[in-house]
Amino acid sequence: MRAAIFRNGDLVVDKMPEPEPKSGQTLVKTLACGICGSDLHAYQHVHHMVDMTKRTGARGPVMDPGRDIVFGHEFCAEILDHGPDTQKTLKPGTRVCSMPISMLVNGSQAEMHSIGYSNLMPGGFAEQMVLNEQMLLEVPNGLPTEHAAMTEPMAVGWHAVQKANIEDNDVALVIGCGPVGLAVIAGLKLKGVHPIVAADFSPARRKLAEVMGADIVIDPAERSPYKAWTDEATPEGFDPTNVMTMLGMGPTMRPGVVFECVGVPGVIEQILESAMRNTRVVVVGVCMELDHIEPFFAIAREVNMKFVLGYTPQEFAETLHFLGEGQIDVAPLITGRVGVEGVKQAFSDLGNPEKHAKILVEPWH
Amino acid sequence: MRAAIFRNGDLVVDKMPEPEPKSGQTLVKTLACGICGSDLHAYQHVHHMVDMTKRTGARGPVMDPGRDIVFGHEFCAEILDHGPDTQKTLKPGTRVCSMPISMLVNGSQAEMHSIGYSNLMPGGFAEQMVLNEQMLLEVPNGLPTEHAAMTEPMAVGWHAVQKANIEDNDVALVIGCGPVGLAVIAGLKLKGVHPIVAADFSPARRKLAEVMGADIVIDPAERSPYKAWTDEATPEGFDPTNVMTMLGMGPTMRPGVVFECVGVPGVIEQILESAMRNTRVVVVGVCMELDHIEPFFAIAREVNMKFVLGYTPQEFAETLHFLGEGQIDVAPLITGRVGVEGVKQAFSDLGNPEKHAKILVEPWH
Repeated sequence: MRAAIFRNGDLVVDKMPEPEPKSGQTLVKTLACGICGSDLHAYQHVHHMVDMTKRTGARGPVMDPGRDIVFGHEFCAEILDHGPDTQKTLKPGTRVCSMPISMLVNGSQAEMHSIGYSNLMPGGFAEQMVLNEQMLLEVPNGLPTEHAAMTEPMAVGWHAVQKANIEDNDVALVIGCGPVGLAVIAGLKLKGVHPIVAADFSPARRKLAEVMGADIVIDPAERSPYKAWTDEATPEGFDPTNVMTMLGMGPTMRPGVVFECVGVPGVIEQILESAMRNTRVVVVGVCMELDHIEPFFAIAREVNMKFVLGYTPQEFAETLHFLGEGQIDVAPLITGRVGVEGVKQAFSDLGNPEKHAKILVEPWH
Repeated sequence: MRAAIFRNGDLVVDKMPEPEPKSGQTLVKTLACGICGSDLHAYQHVHHMVDMTKRTGARGPVMDPGRDIVFGHEFCAEILDHGPDTQKTLKPGTRVCSMPISMLVNGSQAEMHSIGYSNLMPGGFAEQMVLNEQMLLEVPNGLPTEHAAMTEPMAVGWHAVQKANIEDNDVALVIGCGPVGLAVIAGLKLKGVHPIVAADFSPARRKLAEVMGADIVIDPAERSPYKAWTDEATPEGFDPTNVMTMLGMGPTMRPGVVFECVGVPGVIEQILESAMRNTRVVVVGVCMELDHIEPFFAIAREVNMKFVLGYTPQEFAETLHFLGEGQIDVAPLITGRVGVEGVKQAFSDLGNPEKHAKILVEPWH
């Protein structure tokens, strides 16, 4: 089969053997697979990424960049054939999504593989993949394939919002409106949060933020997003002479939650410096570098900082359901489509936020 | 009256005017007042502390180190006289505690002052103070004065434990067994948490940790406290081949909570590197310096980091109640008593954890 292969630090198009479904696995044809920011990161900094993954004590084998890897973990696929020890509940031809995780069982041992970051489990930038049958979710309601492929990145936002313990009357701030920030905005809108304040330096990204449901969209070059956010949290009734308010226990401030969706050093500190009392900070951006903070800002405001990653199986399934029911419209986020031969160029094109949010790879092209 | 005064960066004993109770205030005689780590910090780094306080946007006036300041915010006192606009519920002679916060009302404006870090409100290293009558709590049950003076530091620990959202079956780790860590251990014991793992390089502090209720006490020079803690959280039933466990959703790991009670750069990173999945980190140590973290460790484990400070009025009152009922025995923590002339030497002596935990100032001495 043809694939865009990460080989010796480069992305090349080549033929490779078709994967073979093992016990409990299903062979699928990749219909569409999004390019994720972490794919770009792996492309540029694979050794650092492997090192960090090992340092966190990941269970299961860590990818070896000295051998071929096929990226791609945001996919919609079509069932071709079921392997041994499968229930065969879904017929060949059925369109499916799956969390990009696969178990390989070997006697009494089970290995967990990240599809798209594994030497053994090719990801969605190849014509075919093998998935665990138990993880397959049928695409509902005739949802278009390219929308179903957005389940994974949108689930990241839904998970972050679930982890935020959204309160009545919350004022939300989303820092960074790339695919992660946009998914968070969609999740906040589903939760009924108002206002959603969102900030990004890119006009195109700000436009998308508005489309996805942000109420107040800020260009940080023009106005502080933190000021806009605290202004919203401070209604007219705020009384600075009230002792309970001054002790931070008054009911006059609305609770505040900030989503860090940039993932570069310095943003967490910026948020802490600007936080309100009891602010919840949800760190969704994946920063793999050394960062600096001044803890005293967080201490003085009693900030609660939640670091989040991924989603639960339930959140993943809920997200596909939301897409199927039309509760999230992901069409505006899809800004490009390429075949495997276009992957390398797409990795470069994604550097321009004015042109692109999500590019889908269609390996059958 | 006589006081140990922080003047021009030094601690000097001098006479100063007795404070005068204003509207809503009560004049008290200081019976005992503990020396806090933040007093030591202010003594050594007052300009940085003032700068950080200003940068966090503190409400109310910030102390001016160019003018006299009397430290001391962990006190037990005796009522001498009530000022104007007071209820006079408690009679002169009554022993009281109070949160070290005072409101000065001036027309429609109210200023909040931190007693002990204010140019206007002398703290407990002076013979007399003025307190807000509404904040006075009578010392219950004949509780000894020196124990009542421990209400404030012990309330810090109780607050941290309240903020930790302790779960059934939690395995707790306390990093640092100075007064803050010891107060956290006492709070965890009150909550019935087992095991409490505690770590400190000092043998004397480890002994105190045991006395306060730690179940497993670790010398980090000999054994990793993080290893001891994760071992406790991983019972025999742990099954690494269970897919739900590998996804971090299995019930086989006990939940973990870590209390950072050191407050120096590097400790938070150390905790993040060693955290388990879903670990809650409660940052109680007050670090006013620049710190570095690698967010990816926190992200990969979905760590929840809560920064905490102080206590609520309710937690303060509860702590005094616990002391009065004998539910916390603070006697072992009190390692010295000095008059105002001994304050400067005590600040120096507190640098030796083998000799001291808490020194009380008795200005009437």
